[in-house]
Amino acid sequence: MEDREREVLERIERRRRRPPRLRDELVTLAHGAGGKASRALVESVFLEALRNPLLAPLGDAAVLDAPAGSRLAMTTDTFVVTPRAFPGGDIGALAVSGTVNDLAMAGGRPLALSASFVIEEGVAVAELAAIARSMAAAAAEAEVPVAAGDTKVVERGGADGVYVTTAGVGAVPAGVDLDPGRIRAGDRVLLSGTLADHGMAIMLARGDLDIEADIRSDAQPLYDLVAALIAAVPAGAVRALRDPTRGGLAAVANEFALAAGVGIVLEEAALPVRPDVAGACELLGIDPLHVANEGKLLAVVAPGAADEALAALRAHPRGADAALVGEVRSEPPGMVVLDTAFGGARVVDLLVGNPLPRIC
Amino acid sequence: MEDREREVLERIERRRRRPPRLRDELVTLAHGAGGKASRALVESVFLEALRNPLLAPLGDAAVLDAPAGSRLAMTTDTFVVTPRAFPGGDIGALAVSGTVNDLAMAGGRPLALSASFVIEEGVAVAELAAIARSMAAAAAEAEVPVAAGDTKVVERGGADGVYVTTAGVGAVPAGVDLDPGRIRAGDRVLLSGTLADHGMAIMLARGDLDIEADIRSDAQPLYDLVAALIAAVPAGAVRALRDPTRGGLAAVANEFALAAGVGIVLEEAALPVRPDVAGACELLGIDPLHVANEGKLLAVVAPGAADEALAALRAHPRGADAALVGEVRSEPPGMVVLDTAFGGARVVDLLVGNPLPRIC
Repeated sequence: MEDREREVLERIERRRRRPPRLRDELVTLAHGAGGKASRALVESVFLEALRNPLLAPLGDAAVLDAPAGSRLAMTTDTFVVTPRAFPGGDIGALAVSGTVNDLAMAGGRPLALSASFVIEEGVAVAELAAIARSMAAAAAEAEVPVAAGDTKVVERGGADGVYVTTAGVGAVPAGVDLDPGRIRAGDRVLLSGTLADHGMAIMLARGDLDIEADIRSDAQPLYDLVAALIAAVPAGAVRALRDPTRGGLAAVANEFALAAGVGIVLEEAALPVRPDVAGACELLGIDPLHVANEGKLLAVVAPGAADEALAALRAHPRGADAALVGEVRSEPPGMVVLDTAFGGARVVDLLVGNPLPRIC
Repeated sequence: MEDREREVLERIERRRRRPPRLRDELVTLAHGAGGKASRALVESVFLEALRNPLLAPLGDAAVLDAPAGSRLAMTTDTFVVTPRAFPGGDIGALAVSGTVNDLAMAGGRPLALSASFVIEEGVAVAELAAIARSMAAAAAEAEVPVAAGDTKVVERGGADGVYVTTAGVGAVPAGVDLDPGRIRAGDRVLLSGTLADHGMAIMLARGDLDIEADIRSDAQPLYDLVAALIAAVPAGAVRALRDPTRGGLAAVANEFALAAGVGIVLEEAALPVRPDVAGACELLGIDPLHVANEGKLLAVVAPGAADEALAALRAHPRGADAALVGEVRSEPPGMVVLDTAFGGARVVDLLVGNPLPRIC
C-alpha cells in the first residue's frame, strides 16, 4: 500500500497548496460549474486579491462580530458600467465605493461587504484579476473586508462582460438617525464637492464623443467624511445624507423634498462644477444636475449647524470643494426649484427617458 | 397664484399616490436610468410584492436592530438559472431560499435580505412581477424581510433575461460554531433528504431531453430545520452544515474532508434518491452526487448524537427523508470515498468540466 499512501499524501499536498494553478487565460463555462475550475478561479483570482480572515474559509457565509449597541445598515447595488475601466477607477472600485457610500448615507460604518460576479464566457482572467485588485484597494481605503462572494459564468452573449453586485452591512451608532423625514424648513443643503465628474468621465470614456478633456470619475468611499461631519455638529443636526448617483442631484433633492413634504431651493451659481465638466455637459445638452456622481454627498443640516458642517466637510480631503448649495423652505412642498444664475427660477424634476445608460 | 397652488397640490398628490402607474408591458432602458420610469418599476413591481417597513422608504440602506449577543453571518449568491421558472419554483424563490440557506449553514437566523436585479431590455413586466411575488412568498416562509434592493436594465443581448443577486445577514446565536475544521474521525454524516431533485428538474425543464418525468425542484428555506437540529442535540454536537448546491454532495463532502484533514466515507446504498430522479440521472450519465440541490443539507454530527440528530431531521417536514449516509474516518485524509452497492469503493472527486450549466 506504499504507492497508495504516497498518492494520497501527494494529492492532499497538491490540494492544500495555495493558490491552485489557473492556467486558463480566458474564462470558460467550466469556471462557473462548481468543480475544480471554479475553485481555481475563485482562489487564484478573487481570494488572492481580496484575502482576509472572513473570506478565506470560502464557506457558505462569513461570520463576524456584531458591534454592541449599534443598529445595522444593509444595502446592495449592481454595477453594469460600460466601459469597465475608465479614468479614475473601474467597475471594482466603483462597486466597493458605491456600497460603502450607501451604508455611510445611513450613518453606517462599513463592517463587511459581499461581492458577486456574473462573468461572460471569454472574459480575460487578467481583467478579472485587475478588477479584484481594484476592489481590494478600495476596500482597504474604506477599511472594510470583502467577507463573502460568488461567481457565475454565463454563455457568450449572456452578459456584457462582467457585472458586479456588492452588498454591505454597516454599524449605525446609537443616536444617529438620518431620515429625510426629519428635514425641516430652514435647513441648509450642502454638497461635498463638484458635480457630474463620474457620469461625464464615463460618457467620454465610451468614446462616443469627439471631446478631449481630462475628466476623471470621483468614485471614492465616503464613510470617513460622514463620520467627520457627524462629529462636528450637535447630535441630530445632520438631518439626512444621500449620495447623488444614478439620477444625479436632481433625483436626490426630489426624494428629500417628497419625503419631508418641503420645498428645496438650489442656487445654480453655488453648485460646484469643474469647467471642463461643465463644458462637456453643455456640448451634450445634459444638465449636470442629472448626471451621476460616485464620491459626493448631499447633506441637509440644521440652520445653526451649517457653518460648522461646511467647515468640517472642507477640512477633509474628500470634501475640499464642499459648498452651501441651497436651503429648505415650506413651499412648494414636494418640489425642487433652481434659482438660476440669471435671476429666474425653474422646477428641477426627475429625468424622463434614458440619456445616460450604463454609468453605474 | 391660485392656479399655481392647485397645480402644486395636484402634483404632490400624484407623486404620493402608490403605486405609480406603470403602463409599460416590457422593460425598457428608461426603467434603469434612475428617473421616473425607474421609480415606477421599483414601486409598482418590486415594492408592491415585497413591501415591508425596512424596504418601503427605498433609501440607500435599510437600518435594522442588531440582535444582542449574536454574531453576524453574511452571504451572497447570484442566480442565472435557465429556465427562470421550473417545476417547484422560479429564480425568485430560488434566490431567497439559496441565501437563507447559506446563512442557515453558518447557524444564522436570517435577519434581512437584499435583492438586486439585472434585467434585459424587453423582458415582460408581468414576469418580473411574478418573480417578485415568488420572492415575497419564499421570504415570508423564511420569516425574513427583503430590506434593500437595486435594479439595473441592460441593452437587449446584455443579459439572458433576468439575473438575481441576493445577499443576506443573519444572527448566529452565542455558542453556535459550525466550522468544518471541527469535524473529527468517528463523526456521522447525515443528509436531510433526497439528492439531485433541483438539478434534474432544471435539466428536464430545459426541454433538451426527451424524458417525461414529474421531477420538481426541492428549493426551500432551511433555517427552521437547522434550528430544530441544533436544539435537539448537545451543544457542539453539530460540527458543520452545508447545503449541497452547485457541485452537489460531492463538492461539499470534499470541502469538509479537506478542511478537517479527514476521510469521508459515503454509503451508496444509503443515499436517498427518488426513482425517477435516479432514472433521469442514469439516462444522462450523470452521477446524482454531482447534481445541485436547493433544499437539502449535509450535517456532520458527533457519533453519540447521530440518532437524536437523525430523529430531529425526520420529525421536521423539511427533513422527512433524512438519512445517515456516511461517516468520518482518519483515512484517507482529504478524500471522499463511496462504498458502492456492489461492495467496492471509489474516490468521489470534484467534477471536471461543465456538465450542468445554469442550474442556479
